[in-house]
Amino acid sequence: MTATVPSALAAAQELVDPELRKILSRLDPDTRRVSEYHFGWVNADGVPDTRSGKALRPALVMLSARSGSDDYGAALPAAAAVELVHNFSLLHDDLMDGDLSRRHRPTAWTVFGRSAALLAGDALLALATDTLLEDPSPQAVDAARSLSSAISRLIAGQAADLDFEQRMDVTLDECRTMVAGKTGALLGCSASIGALFVGAPRQTVEQLDAFGRELGMAFQLVDDLLGLWGDPEITGKPVLSDLRSRKKSLPVVHAMTSGKPEGARLRELYVQSEPLSDDQLDEAAEMVDKAGSREWTQAECERRLISAQRHLELADCGAATEGLSELADYILRRQR
Amino acid sequence: MTATVPSALAAAQELVDPELRKILSRLDPDTRRVSEYHFGWVNADGVPDTRSGKALRPALVMLSARSGSDDYGAALPAAAAVELVHNFSLLHDDLMDGDLSRRHRPTAWTVFGRSAALLAGDALLALATDTLLEDPSPQAVDAARSLSSAISRLIAGQAADLDFEQRMDVTLDECRTMVAGKTGALLGCSASIGALFVGAPRQTVEQLDAFGRELGMAFQLVDDLLGLWGDPEITGKPVLSDLRSRKKSLPVVHAMTSGKPEGARLRELYVQSEPLSDDQLDEAAEMVDKAGSREWTQAECERRLISAQRHLELADCGAATEGLSELADYILRRQR
Repeated sequence: MTATVPSALAAAQELVDPELRKILSRLDPDTRRVSEYHFGWVNADGVPDTRSGKALRPALVMLSARSGSDDYGAALPAAAAVELVHNFSLLHDDLMDGDLSRRHRPTAWTVFGRSAALLAGDALLALATDTLLEDPSPQAVDAARSLSSAISRLIAGQAADLDFEQRMDVTLDECRTMVAGKTGALLGCSASIGALFVGAPRQTVEQLDAFGRELGMAFQLVDDLLGLWGDPEITGKPVLSDLRSRKKSLPVVHAMTSGKPEGARLRELYVQSEPLSDDQLDEAAEMVDKAGSREWTQAECERRLISAQRHLELADCGAATEGLSELADYILRRQR
Repeated sequence: MTATVPSALAAAQELVDPELRKILSRLDPDTRRVSEYHFGWVNADGVPDTRSGKALRPALVMLSARSGSDDYGAALPAAAAVELVHNFSLLHDDLMDGDLSRRHRPTAWTVFGRSAALLAGDALLALATDTLLEDPSPQAVDAARSLSSAISRLIAGQAADLDFEQRMDVTLDECRTMVAGKTGALLGCSASIGALFVGAPRQTVEQLDAFGRELGMAFQLVDDLLGLWGDPEITGKPVLSDLRSRKKSLPVVHAMTSGKPEGARLRELYVQSEPLSDDQLDEAAEMVDKAGSREWTQAECERRLISAQRHLELADCGAATEGLSELADYILRRQR
């Protein structure tokens, strides 16, 4: 983790934070408390805390808005809306996965209960659409359409991920499609909705969407690698939690479908009825590595980033290019 | 249950059912299966079944669309959208309340698991917005705004309902506000979005919204009465399940805040740490009755319906008036 954090992230956070706080102040007191805790603004007792989210999606929105206008601040509602959708999905994901910690803190459902976390997720999703539909900008409705479509693909990706839990015959293509929905759709939307919001040409919007989707694939691959070999102190997640819950992530599915003996052993571990012991978790991670899937994941990640850069060039978005490129680069460097 | 079912209900169901099936066919296979089961179109194994939902909200949409246009079929996407939102809320409500049966069948989460039901709810909510934003009608965006605002109020109502579980100091006013969100908001939207969709005058839309909100209050009051003294064979819910889960419904809160000894006894039962026995459940229902709250609920329901009728007259919506009035009447007659 020697990567320098791009200035766009801090800048986006500084802009979008007050906007999000304003939007969340419209919630009923109970849902607001859960949401503000989840965002990292308050602790469980409501005492102010420091936020730890990365604001990656708002940064993409604000940068992409610079490709169509100098007045890119107009895209702020779009930046807030994608961040609301992202946090809706985190709240519901943590609930479904039974995850106990996120961003180095207990997950919202463990603090406020399952129902309150479920409702807070619902509320953030509804607020995201509200925010765009209430905005007077001429492109706000098109932005709402783009976000709504991304939300449906995101949920389909989550449903596929859930379905994979019951299956041992998941193919690499199915897994790619799942990730394209679960991570790619919202990042594609984030990278293009700002440009859409400020009236950039259609070609720019489409290429930025493709850029974001490729970036999303790369992002997920890095996340999968960090989940297997990252430092829990840095990731904020328990060690090998993805293997513990037997997630069919891309590296895992790659190993399982590799035809190698390590893949077969990994399958054996995944179908065993008892929970995996710590030794078995270490062995499973080793099998992914020895099947060549750690290397494949790294290479696939590089390929996705090269493809992302190509789409970024085709987007022809002037001043925004450098910032977006820097952000893409930062995502890759997280793993080194 | 001697009420004759208004023809508008069957007519709306016949129109909206194929539209909903078309919309749900866009879902990923897993979420679609859960949703189609929840709608009552298939059984747990995917074998076709007969639907048992009442299509009350689509009927309101289709009737209100007749107030602005002869071509009221144009409002079909709006009818589908409100029904999607209603079913999103049922899926998540059943999950939060741990309810085991709905419409005489096991609830979706008991058949497909909590996560699948949660995701199906999310997917229906997203589809509702998608449906309106993709519609080419000039008023579709305004309709999407109306629905989005109703969704936020609906979720706030659900959050208040959840909060009440932890509290013994809920006032009647707080309880009314909760019901206005949880039941009134979507019924107000249902009764007005059709008119909005076909370009009816603003006065008509606003009065129909008020009509629907009052109808929603009446509807909830009838539901509360049926939950306490209705025949489980007819309601499709286990006997006294609202008391069993110690819901702070309007009749219950009215009794508790009545200052009468029966209200005090009801409080005692509600704060006891062990689950309520069948005898205690019967006693709790009796306390609501003896505190005068059964009578109050019936009278309050009548008042709401009179107020609804007044708004309906002010809406001045010609041919639609009779059908809407008949529907309002039907809702009251359910309890007799």
